This record gives sequence, structure tokens and C-alpha cells, in this order.
Amino acid sequence: MLELRGIGASAGIAIAKAYRLEEPDLTVSKKEVADKTAEVLRFDEAIQKSKSELEKIKEHAFRELGADKAEIFEAHILVLSDPELLNPVKDKISSEAVNAEFAMKETADMFVSMFESMDNEYMKERAADIRDVTKRVIGHLLGVEIPNPSMISEEVIIVAEDLTPSDTAQLNRQYVLGFTTDIGGRTSHSAIMARSMEIPAVVGTKTATSDIKNGDIVIVDGIDGDVIANPSEDVIAGFEKKKAQYEVQKAEWAKLVNEETVTKDGQHVELAANIGTPDDVRGVLENGGEAVGLYRTEFLYMGRDQLPTEDEQFEAYKAVLERMEGKPVVVRTLDIGGDKELPYLNLPKEMNPFLGFRAIRLCLEEQEIFRTQLRALLRASTFGNLKIMFPMIAVVDEFRQAKAILLEEKAKLVSEGADVSENIEIGMMVEIPSTAVLADQFAKDVDFFSIGTNDLIQYTMAADRMNERVSYLYQPYNPAILRLVSLVIEAAHKEGKWVGMCGEMAGDPLAIPVLLGLGLDEFSMSATSILPARSLIKNLSKEEAASFKEEILSMSTTDEVVEFVKTKFNL
Amino acid sequence: MLELRGIGASAGIAIAKAYRLEEPDLTVSKKEVADKTAEVLRFDEAIQKSKSELEKIKEHAFRELGADKAEIFEAHILVLSDPELLNPVKDKISSEAVNAEFAMKETADMFVSMFESMDNEYMKERAADIRDVTKRVIGHLLGVEIPNPSMISEEVIIVAEDLTPSDTAQLNRQYVLGFTTDIGGRTSHSAIMARSMEIPAVVGTKTATSDIKNGDIVIVDGIDGDVIANPSEDVIAGFEKKKAQYEVQKAEWAKLVNEETVTKDGQHVELAANIGTPDDVRGVLENGGEAVGLYRTEFLYMGRDQLPTEDEQFEAYKAVLERMEGKPVVVRTLDIGGDKELPYLNLPKEMNPFLGFRAIRLCLEEQEIFRTQLRALLRASTFGNLKIMFPMIAVVDEFRQAKAILLEEKAKLVSEGADVSENIEIGMMVEIPSTAVLADQFAKDVDFFSIGTNDLIQYTMAADRMNERVSYLYQPYNPAILRLVSLVIEAAHKEGKWVGMCGEMAGDPLAIPVLLGLGLDEFSMSATSILPARSLIKNLSKEEAASFKEEILSMSTTDEVVEFVKTKFNL
Repeated sequence: MLELRGIGASAGIAIAKAYRLEEPDLTVSKKEVADKTAEVLRFDEAIQKSKSELEKIKEHAFRELGADKAEIFEAHILVLSDPELLNPVKDKISSEAVNAEFAMKETADMFVSMFESMDNEYMKERAADIRDVTKRVIGHLLGVEIPNPSMISEEVIIVAEDLTPSDTAQLNRQYVLGFTTDIGGRTSHSAIMARSMEIPAVVGTKTATSDIKNGDIVIVDGIDGDVIANPSEDVIAGFEKKKAQYEVQKAEWAKLVNEETVTKDGQHVELAANIGTPDDVRGVLENGGEAVGLYRTEFLYMGRDQLPTEDEQFEAYKAVLERMEGKPVVVRTLDIGGDKELPYLNLPKEMNPFLGFRAIRLCLEEQEIFRTQLRALLRASTFGNLKIMFPMIAVVDEFRQAKAILLEEKAKLVSEGADVSENIEIGMMVEIPSTAVLADQFAKDVDFFSIGTNDLIQYTMAADRMNERVSYLYQPYNPAILRLVSLVIEAAHKEGKWVGMCGEMAGDPLAIPVLLGLGLDEFSMSATSILPARSLIKNLSKEEAASFKEEILSMSTTDEVVEFVKTKFNL
Repeated sequence: MLELRGIGASAGIAIAKAYRLEEPDLTVSKKEVADKTAEVLRFDEAIQKSKSELEKIKEHAFRELGADKAEIFEAHILVLSDPELLNPVKDKISSEAVNAEFAMKETADMFVSMFESMDNEYMKERAADIRDVTKRVIGHLLGVEIPNPSMISEEVIIVAEDLTPSDTAQLNRQYVLGFTTDIGGRTSHSAIMARSMEIPAVVGTKTATSDIKNGDIVIVDGIDGDVIANPSEDVIAGFEKKKAQYEVQKAEWAKLVNEETVTKDGQHVELAANIGTPDDVRGVLENGGEAVGLYRTEFLYMGRDQLPTEDEQFEAYKAVLERMEGKPVVVRTLDIGGDKELPYLNLPKEMNPFLGFRAIRLCLEEQEIFRTQLRALLRASTFGNLKIMFPMIAVVDEFRQAKAILLEEKAKLVSEGADVSENIEIGMMVEIPSTAVLADQFAKDVDFFSIGTNDLIQYTMAADRMNERVSYLYQPYNPAILRLVSLVIEAAHKEGKWVGMCGEMAGDPLAIPVLLGLGLDEFSMSATSILPARSLIKNLSKEEAASFKEEILSMSTTDEVVEFVKTKFNL
């Protein structure tokens, strides 16, 4: 029996045989070819085979995982149709009389390193796409089989160094009971996917692939972050029991789907979900979400060659509003720029993208982009309960200017005879420290605040949350952060406005009692966190939580806060 | 007559003939050479000529501007002695039979683009060095003269697109009465140099080089940021008068050199200077500085191949402490990493260096570097009035850990029989929002705070101060910033601790009345700003300034604050 510690990336327990998703040997050596025309033909055939394979995977992903995930493979197929990649390969074969696999690898490596050096998340994803499809093409040329996780047809636990987006999207929930990886953290791509697919997962075990063999029996405990290989009967029995308890708990949670979120002392708070696409609404409703607290509209703009039209956007916003059936939907206007780049906007590279020209800063300058989105939102507003918020507001003038533009577009639409709701609340993200510090002034202008803790923490601590070397400073429970949150809530309530939170922190069981005590009105989180949060809140007294406020806010370190909360709330 | 508006980069008025510092035509074309050995020889000769020219410029810079500035040319001479640059050029001449200027240009371009793409200020400076010396070498090869500002021997105003460090370091204060450039801002290199050399300068005129001809009479008004070419007699007379008034004012300021800084109502505040090297102390004393409020120790670590030894550091700290003759000297421990990289530390590239692994974060991990510096400081402590502060503290634990390490080294030194002062105050920079928000907790642990407004503003606003596209958010007078400053001062005073400020803001005439009203104890600025600040403070009442505090802190925008301050204090 072997025990590994990792990071619980997705709750639940799975027990099954290990299926190692291994990198095939795709070593390529340079060879001279006599018949260059035949070699180009051989290359064309490999491309065709790869494309038809990808078509099948895409269809599978569409059926099993929805349109979003299928798009990944559409992107791969497009790469294999791109003359800018294919022609240089063919030229190389013809001019240098080299074998197709070598020409493909050289050319792809060049593009990959070019895109990767761009220090731009979007281009890095393109690099990953090229790497992904190159493997497939070279596999065909070498006659080496590329592992195809979508074809798994017995119950397994996947063991891999890491899972790429394309790997994860191919997983079949019916057979893949869980997975574990050597690398990754709670916010890595594979972890997020695991939670959205509700597959138990433990990431960052460091040695799973070297310690676990194909066919070993493996237990993945995504609750506590443990992985056990070749367990004894007793150990299996223990985990079966833990699994059953978790299932019972899940069933308990499921009963709360249609309940309101009410504390022990009868106080209601709103549990909302963060979404990225209209398709995500299903998960929100299935998990009993009372609202969409954050609709990230960036997805509409990404993975394409040009800006989405007003009508395309209108359709997406309308779909979300309709599907939410009158429940509140808080839409965040475009938060692009910096690390989330859109290649077609040709934004200059920045030294510190997180402190750069992004979100509302970009929208106030590139007003046509902003106005198009606002018009689409305003036109969709009559199909549900729309609230609009602006991201990355730093100073009062920015909020006033953004709101003025919104009202201008509204007036224009009304004068054109369009139907626009009269009850759209206009709020802002509180994610820049200046806005928390000056919340009393902002509160006079806004209808609501939504605290974006991911960014608020990173700026308040001056620590890039993506940078592992300073990740120890990403401290949600630091009293400085809690004071800012408290300032915002007090300031808003004084003006009769409500406050939500849409960062990771809002769904964290340890943070929830504190936030409840500080008076937070709306908690917006991953859909799958809603029911556990509701269950937790039902057992909390808001008055009691509030009674600890002063004590917590006068602490000096994160450790003190965590210790205190754990003790007081038995967490 | 032609009037240009720019940015007043260095106060004062200069009137003289224009001297255009123009880029010479160094177009290089590729030629085949028959005698490759002769071509390599020709290249060697050009290198030798360039080096002896640079030796002369270096000596000139040393005499006129001091050792610091002379180092720039030492670096250039080193570049011209570097086989990693020279050998590839010679190889290219030999293997490709091309002319030396072409080989030099191709090779240098390759290095320049490699270093520039590194997104690292240090390597970018190396790129600038290579570009600078390449021009000189190619000039010799082509027989084209490179303009040599150090050889100017009549009174002129320099007109240039921009001034490189090497250009500025060559300027002879005796003849160069002022300068104006097309590009640059108040914090660009040339602007900072102009202030330290006390040469009137206007930068960012956009069109000076296209509008002004050699020999035109030019007025540079560094007070208001105006440049006038070919003025009428009347206009000249007007500016002569303004210049005389400014000289009178400067003479008035000069009288304040040995005075204390006392407000109209008898309150003393301390006016200190920011320095980078022991040589800077002279300027501090000449300008009546009462202390060194910030000694940036990074210069000791930069422009070299390895870390400075404990003894090298000891000598520098001792020199500053001795020269300040018992006046306080606040030393900031190493603030390196992020954009200020040391190549010999091999730090990984970061996506957002301003939010990265730098300063105390690095020192707490690379403790040998930190301990060496602390030992050097402790050993120097008996030579003057030393105070030590830690940069980039975000959480209380970091301060405690840094202080514990300092006390450990102190105990070790004492046990080794070394002489260490018993009165070293230990403080920290407040430049990360979390520390301002939690200042009451930090105040219990520290002896003093020094507010670093440059970083505090950038983090509080989430706006990179080097990024022009978001520079509108760099708002020192934003009420959010002023509230944080006020929080820090109140928290410190409650614990009986003092608060300084060492960002640009401390020397800003518009900010001084506000900061005085908030209760700031020490203002640390460029040495040349001290006397004007003292003069201003003598005419202010601290009680009156404090009476506006609540009103200012309850404003919502920067504009309101600026308007109010200008009106109330007649600024």
C-alpha cells in the first residue's frame, strides 16, 4: 500500500483501477527522402487522418460535455487547416528533401516557441493547441498510437503527469471515476474542470506517475487530498464508508436545491453562481443558485478573429436572462486586456499586465467596443432581471463616465423605439484597493458593489496570484483584507445599497461565517459550491457571527483569524 | 517666434543658442572584402580608437560629474573589451568575407534585440550600452563623426529627440545652460539628471527637433514647461526678468540652508533627502538636509558581476553615516528583484514583476544576501545615527521575521566582540496597501514607518506607474491615497512612533500642506527640493493645515482635492 498527499481539487471519493495516460514516444529523427512528392502526399494523408479523428472526438465532446468543450477540438481542426502552418512544412519537405515528421516538428516547434515567448495567455493556448495537434500528426506519421481518453470504456482512475484541456474534455464521466496528477494546484485548469465535471480529483501529488502502475487499484480522496495505491481490504472498506457518508451528505445537500438560504436565526442571504456562458445556467439551476452573481462576458470575445457583433452578444445575454427565469443576473462588462488578451485588438505588450490597460480602462478608451456591449445588454434587459457592473474601477470618475455612456446608449435605444428595462441596477466590482478605501464615496453613485476578492487580495498584498514564489501572500483571511471587505459592506449599507462577493473566497466554507458576520448580502461562487454553502449557512447564526466582527478585525495575522474561526465555528 | 509646450523637468530659465544633438548618418551597407585579415585589423583599430575616446570622456565625466556618472563609460569600455561581442564580429568578417561595419552592425543588432526582448530593465540598459558603443565604432569605421556633447565649449541649449544616459553624463554644466527634448516625462532619466545637475529643462515638447534649427535663440522655461525659439527682444527681456526673480528666490532659499524647518505656528518637521550613494551626501548637506530619509542600497549591488562583500557594504554605509555627522540616516535594505534585476542572482522572469518576488520577499528566502547586508549595517552603526527599514512588507509576519534575523545577526556580532550601536531604530516602508490598512497592528511592532508613495499609489490604484496608458490613475491626491496616509500617521502616533514619507509626493509643493495637516513628521525628497520645501513650510500654519483634514478626506475625487488645496493655500 502506498499513500500520496496532494491537493484535493474536486471533492468526492473514487476507487478503481489506474489508467495511466502516458506520453507516447514520438521521437523524430531527420531522414533524407528520395521522393519528395510522395513525402508531401504522406504528410497530407496524416493531416487528413488526424482531422477525421478530431472530428470524432469533437462529436463525442459535444454529446458528453456540451458545445463549449467541443470548441477546443474545433480549434484543433482549424489549426490543421491553416496554410500558415502546413505550407512551411511542405516547403521544407520539398526544398530540403527531409521526412515529413521532421519537417512538421521543426516547423511546429518554431511556432510554439514563438507563441510561447509572447507572454500572453491567449497565444500560449494557441501554442498548446499546436503542440497537441502536432503530436497527433506525428503519431500518424510514425504509426504510434496517441492515447485517446475518450475511448476509455471501463471504470478507471486516470493517473497522469498533468491533464491538458484536450485530455480533460475527452474524459467520459461514465467511466472516468476520478483522476490524480503529479502537478497542478486548486486553481489549475484540470482542477477547475474536475469540479465542473464533478469528478473526484487530487492534483499536485508530485510522484503519482512514478509510483502507480497501470491496473493498480487506486483510491482518490478529493475531500482530503489523499491518493492510495494498492490499499488493503480494510482500507478500501474504510473509504467505501467515507464515500457513502459523502454521498449521504450530497443527498442532503441535494434536498436544499429549492430552499432559500436562511441562517439559523432567520436571516436570508443570496447564494449565486459565477458563469461564463449561457450553457452554464443549467448547472446554476441544478445546484439551486438563486442568481447569477457574475456573468463573465469575456468568453464571447475569445477564441475568434474579430469582435462579436451586437446581435451575437444580444442572443447570449438574452439566453442567460431567459434561462434564469427572472432571477437576478449580474453581468460584468468586458474585462479584457493585460493577461487576457484578444489578438485582434492588437494591444501592446505590457510589463505588468495585472496593473495595466484592461477592463474598464480599455472600454473607456475603445468606446465602440464598450457601447456595442452595452447596447446588446440593454436590448436584452427586458428578458429577465439584469444588473450591470463595471470591472477594474479605480476612481469615482471612471464609474461616472461608464455610467454616463450606459445612459447615453439607453437614451439612444429608447429614442430608436427599442424596449429597455427601467429597472437595471448599475454597480461595480470592488477589486482595486482604492475603491474599498473610498467605498463610502462610491456608495453614493452605485446601486450595488460586488467584491472581487481574487484581484482585491492580489493588489492589496502586491502579490501576483499566478506567481508561485509569492503565493504565500495570497491571504484571504488576512485582517487587512477583512477590514476592506467590512469597510465596503458598512459603506454600502449606510447608503441602502447591497454588497455581493464573486471571488473564490465567497464559496470557501472557512470564509463564509466571517463574511456572514461582516454582513455580506450575496455570495457568488462555483455552482457546485452552492448547496454545501447553503447547508453550512443554515447551521450558522448571523447574530453570533456578527458578534465576532470587532475581535476578528483587530487581529494582526492570518493565522490568528484562521485559528479563531476554526475554533468558534467548529470548522 | 515659436512657442512650444512641454513638461517642466527641472526648474529655472535658460536663454542661449540652440545646439542640436543629432543622430549622425550611420547607414551601413554590406560589402564583400578581398583581404579578410586586413578587415579584421581595421575593425581592431576602430575598437582601439573608440576605447581611447571613451577613456577621455570618462575622465571628463569623473571630473565634472563624479565617480557615479563616470561608471557609465567604464561600462562602455568593458563592452568594447568583451570577446563575446568582438569575436562573433571577427568570425563574421572571416567566414563571410564581409566589411567590418556590416559585421559589427549585424552582431550588435542581434545582441540588442536579444537583450531588449528580455523585458528586464537591467538587460535593456545593457542593450542601450551596446547600441551606444556600436554607433561609436561604426562612426570610426565609416569616418563619420559622432557628436560629442562633452566637447561643447560655448553657451548653448541642447535640443534633442531624447538624451541617453551617456549624452547627459557628458554635458558640461559650464556651457550647457539648459536642454529640451521631444520625448520624456517628469520621471524620465533625462529629467532626473537635469534636476540633479540643476540645469533648466523642458521635456516632452514633441516637436522641438523639427521646429528648432541650430543657432536659433531658444528660451527654456523649466518652471512652467515652455520653450520659445527666436523670441523678440521684449520676450527675452520678460524672461530675463523672470530668471532674475527665480535667482532671487533661489538666493532666498539658499539662506535657509542652516535653518530648522519650522512652520508659522512653531511646529518642527524634518526635511530629509533620498540618496543612492555616499557621494550624494554632499548634495544633501549643501541643500540643508536634516537627515537622509531614504538610502537606496541597490546601487551597491548593480552594474557588477557578483554580490558586494560585507566589507564593501560596510565602507559605503560607514561613509554615509560619517558624512552625515550624526544626522539620522534611514537605510532601506535591498529592494531588488522584479524590474530591478541582478543578472548574477539568476532570478526567473515574472509576468508581473511589480507584484513579484522582490525586496524583503527575496531577502527572507535568500537569507545569506540579507544577513550580509545586515551585518555590514550593524558594524557601521556606531559611526552615526543609523535607522534600518525593510521594503515591500505586506504582512506582520514578514516584519517580525526580518527583525528577528536582524537581532540574530546583532547578537552574533556582539558575541564576536564587535561594536554595535544600541539605538538603531527598526522600521518599515509602507508601500503595500495591506500595511496601511493594518497600520495600527504594525505600529505595535515597528519603531517608525516610511511611506513609499510611488509604490503605494501604484498598488492602491492597480496601475503600473511606468505604463503610460494607465498613468492617469497615478493620483497622489486621490482621497483614497490621502486616507491611507492619514491612517498610517494616526496609527503610528497613537503608539508614539514617527512617520516619514520618501516617495515623489513628499517633495511636491501641492502635497506638502496636505501632508503637514495629516501630521507627517518627516518629508524625504530629492536634495534640490529641500530648500523650496522649507521656504514653503515656513509660511504654513500646521494648525490651519490640520483643520482641513476632515474636509479633504471626505472628498471623492482628485480634482476636488487639488482645487481645494490650491484655493486654501494660494498655490
